[in-house]
Amino acid sequence: MRILMAGCGVVGSALVRLLAERGDAIERQHGVRLEVVCALVRDRSKPRPDVLHADRVTTDLATFLATDGEVVVDAMGGCTPALEIARHALAHRNGLVTANKAVLALHGAELARSAEAHGTTLSYEAAVAGGVPVIRVLRDALGQAGVRRIRGVLNGTTNFVLGRMEGGSRFDHAVAEAQALGFAEADPERDLNGQDAADKVRLLAWQAFGVDPAKLPLDPVGLLPDPDRLVADALASGRTVRLLAEAVHTAEGVTATVAPVLVERDSTFGRAAGEENVVEFESDALGTLRLSGPGAGGRPTAAALLSDLLAMAPPRRGPAP
Amino acid sequence: MRILMAGCGVVGSALVRLLAERGDAIERQHGVRLEVVCALVRDRSKPRPDVLHADRVTTDLATFLATDGEVVVDAMGGCTPALEIARHALAHRNGLVTANKAVLALHGAELARSAEAHGTTLSYEAAVAGGVPVIRVLRDALGQAGVRRIRGVLNGTTNFVLGRMEGGSRFDHAVAEAQALGFAEADPERDLNGQDAADKVRLLAWQAFGVDPAKLPLDPVGLLPDPDRLVADALASGRTVRLLAEAVHTAEGVTATVAPVLVERDSTFGRAAGEENVVEFESDALGTLRLSGPGAGGRPTAAALLSDLLAMAPPRRGPAP
Repeated sequence: MRILMAGCGVVGSALVRLLAERGDAIERQHGVRLEVVCALVRDRSKPRPDVLHADRVTTDLATFLATDGEVVVDAMGGCTPALEIARHALAHRNGLVTANKAVLALHGAELARSAEAHGTTLSYEAAVAGGVPVIRVLRDALGQAGVRRIRGVLNGTTNFVLGRMEGGSRFDHAVAEAQALGFAEADPERDLNGQDAADKVRLLAWQAFGVDPAKLPLDPVGLLPDPDRLVADALASGRTVRLLAEAVHTAEGVTATVAPVLVERDSTFGRAAGEENVVEFESDALGTLRLSGPGAGGRPTAAALLSDLLAMAPPRRGPAP
Repeated sequence: MRILMAGCGVVGSALVRLLAERGDAIERQHGVRLEVVCALVRDRSKPRPDVLHADRVTTDLATFLATDGEVVVDAMGGCTPALEIARHALAHRNGLVTANKAVLALHGAELARSAEAHGTTLSYEAAVAGGVPVIRVLRDALGQAGVRRIRGVLNGTTNFVLGRMEGGSRFDHAVAEAQALGFAEADPERDLNGQDAADKVRLLAWQAFGVDPAKLPLDPVGLLPDPDRLVADALASGRTVRLLAEAVHTAEGVTATVAPVLVERDSTFGRAAGEENVVEFESDALGTLRLSGPGAGGRPTAAALLSDLLAMAPPRRGPAP
């Protein structure tokens, strides 16, 4: 399976390494070899994984779009040129496997229509909650469970920053640390102002309730403008701040919010540590189901991209006979 | 899709009701109507859901096996006649969707070989952790993540009983309450002596590590013979007892244990409340991923059976375009 990969930063590099590590096991189990045949990057001079040959790296969008492949992986941030790449991929009947929540939150419905019209697939497990398989669980396990409410800590960067600040760090130091560790978006502004969590809750509401993610009314509140005040309130009350995202389905429709809230330290969301994400689904048939795990970082997000790639590579084997 | 359902107790009845409730939504989304055309029961005189017509209920195994259908659902306990039904189903190219951990723990490898040889499918999400989608997550999200260790509270009955006893109930009262609420197996002995949790951890090790579940060395310890002593130790130490199941993959092979352990009340497993199950996966690519939810009870287990049935009913739609 020839992969065209848009972006080769923290997530893309981690995917290249994971494919190299797991290549033989994947071929044994799925009968397919996954290979990145072209990687589109902004800056050729940055270091890339050794296993990615230099002649497979390009800075030229036209070259990237003209390269022959079966599936396009979007491991970039932002809409330019990611939206053009996504449209081109689906129109050419390539599968699209994407970690790009911003593109989907704005254009997901259009892209899903295009995938359907062209008989191909759009997969985005990696776009929400990093390595925590929330999209799959919503679709496959909860698809007919009657989900009513989704709540979660969906932004690893803000959670990491809040944890550091509650431990005594300064805001700017904590943000710089999140960036150095590869959790933060290239532009951490979208993490800190709640836009990133808003994108993700839009995608959860889309998957769970079928609403167009771009049309869901949602005015997120993030840590800004005064993160110090949030943390001071938490410390004074013996609680902890969490940037909580929520989507609720009622008879009146679907509503969504993103806002910092004070929660007990030993509560479901209060226990989300560092870059961890925690998501709670309430449904008619299953009651409360919770998932938690690494919500940010290159390797977990790459593992989510890989799980979507493998879903395109039948035959998948069951347990060993 | 014509369903032949073996067993119509707590789980089977819940599935019949769920199919009636969700039938229209399923048909809209998956283009298929799921219908129980024959239910095999032991005792005709017990009450069944109204939506299951009496002429579709039989106590005769030969009648059940001779009925035409596409998929067999095993919602019984024990191996007799469940093993014969499973073998017959797969040999006749019917899909098998099962909640029967006992049959799979002993004969899973044989049944998986038969499914493969006959070009059909064996699905068992409902056999482990009730409504918590652990099999799916292992297969689809963690299939190439390099899982090293699985730990969990996998038996809702023992967890419920321990919680009640730590709250002051007598052992026999707590067991009777679990039975009345539909959590306990028909014979709660297998819950209480750790055999049920052992069956489940065998299935997790099978899915994760490819080992034959019947050949995994495992000598489970349950709450017996002295549950009062376990609870007294917990109360004296300020901790809580959990029946912990574990499977570990090392260079030397796969090992598994089931035993009661004292854990902190606010730890991952200590927080498992009542019949809740908690499962933690440690993997190379994803770090620690946790799932928790309703591990027992008719409706969550029926929802897991339904998710496996829907996986056999393409086309599955993605999010709404």
